[in-house]
Amino acid sequence: MPLTIADLETPVPVVDLDRLARNLDRAAAYATAHDLALRPHIKTHKAPRIASKQLERGAVGVTCATPFEAEVMSTVCDDILVAYPPVGMARANRLASLPDTVKLTVALDSLTAIDDAAAAGRNADRPISVYVELDLGMHRVGVPRVEQAIALARAVCERPPLEFAGIAFYPGHVRDAVGSQAAKLEQLDAALRDTLQAFDRAGVHPTVVSGGSTPTMWNTHELTGVTEFRPGTYVYNDRTTAAIGACDWDDCALTVLATVVSTAVPGQAVIDAGTKALGREPMRGTDSAEGFGCVLGRHDVVVKGMSEEHGILDLSSTDWHPQVGEKVRVIPNHVCIVVHLNDVIAGIRGDTVETTWPVSARGRGYVIET
Amino acid sequence: MPLTIADLETPVPVVDLDRLARNLDRAAAYATAHDLALRPHIKTHKAPRIASKQLERGAVGVTCATPFEAEVMSTVCDDILVAYPPVGMARANRLASLPDTVKLTVALDSLTAIDDAAAAGRNADRPISVYVELDLGMHRVGVPRVEQAIALARAVCERPPLEFAGIAFYPGHVRDAVGSQAAKLEQLDAALRDTLQAFDRAGVHPTVVSGGSTPTMWNTHELTGVTEFRPGTYVYNDRTTAAIGACDWDDCALTVLATVVSTAVPGQAVIDAGTKALGREPMRGTDSAEGFGCVLGRHDVVVKGMSEEHGILDLSSTDWHPQVGEKVRVIPNHVCIVVHLNDVIAGIRGDTVETTWPVSARGRGYVIET
Repeated sequence: MPLTIADLETPVPVVDLDRLARNLDRAAAYATAHDLALRPHIKTHKAPRIASKQLERGAVGVTCATPFEAEVMSTVCDDILVAYPPVGMARANRLASLPDTVKLTVALDSLTAIDDAAAAGRNADRPISVYVELDLGMHRVGVPRVEQAIALARAVCERPPLEFAGIAFYPGHVRDAVGSQAAKLEQLDAALRDTLQAFDRAGVHPTVVSGGSTPTMWNTHELTGVTEFRPGTYVYNDRTTAAIGACDWDDCALTVLATVVSTAVPGQAVIDAGTKALGREPMRGTDSAEGFGCVLGRHDVVVKGMSEEHGILDLSSTDWHPQVGEKVRVIPNHVCIVVHLNDVIAGIRGDTVETTWPVSARGRGYVIET
Repeated sequence: MPLTIADLETPVPVVDLDRLARNLDRAAAYATAHDLALRPHIKTHKAPRIASKQLERGAVGVTCATPFEAEVMSTVCDDILVAYPPVGMARANRLASLPDTVKLTVALDSLTAIDDAAAAGRNADRPISVYVELDLGMHRVGVPRVEQAIALARAVCERPPLEFAGIAFYPGHVRDAVGSQAAKLEQLDAALRDTLQAFDRAGVHPTVVSGGSTPTMWNTHELTGVTEFRPGTYVYNDRTTAAIGACDWDDCALTVLATVVSTAVPGQAVIDAGTKALGREPMRGTDSAEGFGCVLGRHDVVVKGMSEEHGILDLSSTDWHPQVGEKVRVIPNHVCIVVHLNDVIAGIRGDTVETTWPVSARGRGYVIET
């Protein structure tokens, strides 16, 4: 008899394999249609088997954030961007120690990061491609002024084995409901146009212009000069992505299977998925900031509060009365955090558990010898 | 040459071993002085080596939340309370499969949980002690009315191999600044008094009255009838515990060591500890709800925003200007989440890294055979 989700211990993340395949196909088709390089960020799944599916469908390589993610992905991918400043020799040397078969690119925004990457490249005797990161509105990393970016690009060119390969930005601030994001996309496009003209005047030529993010991914072809995009969330999607209209509710592939463990307090039901299974992520870029996730098929029933191992379902505006022992599936607000919190994912088709896989790139892979 | 924190890759949680020992000693001395059973919740450290230190200092046993935590702790402890409803046969059977040498107690609040625990006890042919959980103001789990609790206690007595051992409550709602929590403690004491009188009138006798929580731990002896307390956070403490005055800032034993990776955007510095290292936990029970952690020794510098791998330090009201590459230590708002996010802890004395240990009970320990 096949294993079904009713047999699983909870809380556990389950992925609808049909939805996952559909999400992968749709992004690959978009990249092909617009002649864009798709370099998905693997932070969302942290699993070589899903990276392989992305590469089979035409992804040019992957994007990672940490040395451990890059190490794990190097088992299936030979073109890796670490979209994170390689600051500190421990981090830089670890990146430069990736297998020689890997074409390594890093994104950075400081002279310190350039010096660290150059030293690590020399130590390991390997070329390292560099994207210079610009802040085009997100205000997280990236230099705010194009003159700074050009100066950093020149510094890269002066420090072999580094090679200047392009510029990168992250449009994480464009996270409005589809339709009301037009003004921000226009600003972003104008900033990109100015940036590329300034680089051109300076005689410095970024081969790659790397943008991306799931909320803006279907607009990538409208942005001046962008050659590559790096969405992560699109493989699974989540409540935020659906709420802003960047995917349909039926595209949410990952849910957290949970069990109702208490209904003793009136007006609520307690499930066994709390902050240690769901994270405590707000809705991002929407006004419906309510709750930390919603029940699959009952999107009006939200997780209104959480402790570490308890999620509190708000039953105040539903006539549904779940019983102790009943199982529910929660669509999380932010799926990347859920994956990071868990060690294993169950792949389902309908109610049948067809496969499982480890979240291989979870954690940091530190070896500390005292 | 000894390893120092300057040698560590970041982000990584580091524990000041002297502060840890002091925190363990203080709680043990309090329990002894007031003749209270200390049954620490191991969710905060998830490490057998720290549980052993608690047991050596006189703890009567440990408290766990999940079957995996109980399995890991059974390697060092033979008296385990799972303070979580054993709902669902997968969970209940897994608990009943703990080594026979373990005295197992569960806390619950429903007839379903009683039936599941009784069936699992019969399956495994082992006695299971039961605490009936009451809601004394937290409004999470626990029956709200004492008559319900008495009915559940009677149901336990009728279902061997279950044994009614006592009542439990969690005063998680008493999290105010020390000094302004007096009214809530009085309410709690009155509720306890009424509860115990009602049990007495019904002729049902709870041997154990189990309370606890770090914010209220030093008041445990003032609460009528409480015989046992279950604090968890006190081993490490955190920004919340210090901010409400339940510990001194110098008692915060765990910090997250992080590296400044970008200062490109004015007014802020970006560190490599984001939601995947620090969690996204609000301050609890204080008005200073600002930020997700603060810098050790610079408590006015807070983590004002986060992405998965980025923490944004607010530098708007400090004359400190950290440089790219500089290391900082962050006191997290809620330490239990930080431990759950990480696989390894470094134990330090001063700047020397003296030891490391794995977060052994992190995760769920699921075996899913498809």
